[in-house]
Amino acid sequence: MTAIDNLAKTLSKLPGVGPKSAARIAFHLVRTPSEYNALLAQNIAEIKDKVRPCSICGSYTETDPCPVCTDPGRDRTVLCIVEQPQDVITIQNSGAYNGLFHVLGGAINPLNSVGPEDLDFAGLVKRIEGGDFSEIIIATNPTEEGDTTALYIRHMLKDYPGLSLSRLAAGLPIGGDLEFADRSTLVRSLRGRVRY
Amino acid sequence: MTAIDNLAKTLSKLPGVGPKSAARIAFHLVRTPSEYNALLAQNIAEIKDKVRPCSICGSYTETDPCPVCTDPGRDRTVLCIVEQPQDVITIQNSGAYNGLFHVLGGAINPLNSVGPEDLDFAGLVKRIEGGDFSEIIIATNPTEEGDTTALYIRHMLKDYPGLSLSRLAAGLPIGGDLEFADRSTLVRSLRGRVRY
Repeated sequence: MTAIDNLAKTLSKLPGVGPKSAARIAFHLVRTPSEYNALLAQNIAEIKDKVRPCSICGSYTETDPCPVCTDPGRDRTVLCIVEQPQDVITIQNSGAYNGLFHVLGGAINPLNSVGPEDLDFAGLVKRIEGGDFSEIIIATNPTEEGDTTALYIRHMLKDYPGLSLSRLAAGLPIGGDLEFADRSTLVRSLRGRVRY
Repeated sequence: MTAIDNLAKTLSKLPGVGPKSAARIAFHLVRTPSEYNALLAQNIAEIKDKVRPCSICGSYTETDPCPVCTDPGRDRTVLCIVEQPQDVITIQNSGAYNGLFHVLGGAINPLNSVGPEDLDFAGLVKRIEGGDFSEIIIATNPTEEGDTTALYIRHMLKDYPGLSLSRLAAGLPIGGDLEFADRSTLVRSLRGRVRY
């Protein structure tokens, strides 16, 4: 196996990088300036030393606790539950949320043997019992696994008094065209139609 | 800027990796085993030292001349002209070609200021004059730039006696559906229709 095949094989294990993209990137990296290759190699080699999960919310951070958990300007009565650390960044970037986060570390998925015991529900309960939360927003993905996880959280938290529970709305994506909406999305947007 | 943003920014300069894929890969690399990150970083850092262009055909190789140029089993009367080093691999993998290759290093593209002087036409002429070629297959891409480059090669080589010139057929991709063919492909496959 040549050095390019080798690099391509290693690259093809990255998410969203198939064999063809991996080969394309490998060939590209023969042509890039040496400084770029050195920088990319260094960034990859160092990332796991620089970044770790926040001991409170579970999102990735360079300081523990993370900047969101320690920010005095955030609303400590609202908690948004997400599957993955990157979901925190996505919701942060929307600019529409100013509460705290809790990262479960995945979603319940019996087919992949991911049960509730594999996700950080213990940390979630501890935070809710020790915190001042009045609202919980479930922001798991609109997938079968995310739906199952949301249902599990709903059952788990239904006996906590004074806790308002909600889940992110599912429906037509803004700017999308009805014609191109898939059936499941259309069904969800019909069922969840907003009455005037 | 955090270490993850930094890594994502560096990754987003790779071909086919947009800002969202770059972020996804960066988050993924926090979770991968350290051994994988070390291997990927090493492969990237070393690739430019291991691989260089073949001094004869211009494809990427770890030995100079490359294994194709030195292979005694290949037909030295046929030369296939391609734009990029990775095109050599693609055609090799098809298993349908057993001649030699010549890599131009790109295609003529006036909008990006790539003229004939930026491509390896000098090396091509030298090889044709010094070699035993009787057939030249132009395998530039079926794009405007590839078409222009093919035309340029056709004019350049028209005065060489005993040289058969051809270009890869363009048309409907095998296994594709007429319904989904784009207009330009359909026009090309109509113009180039094969008569019985």
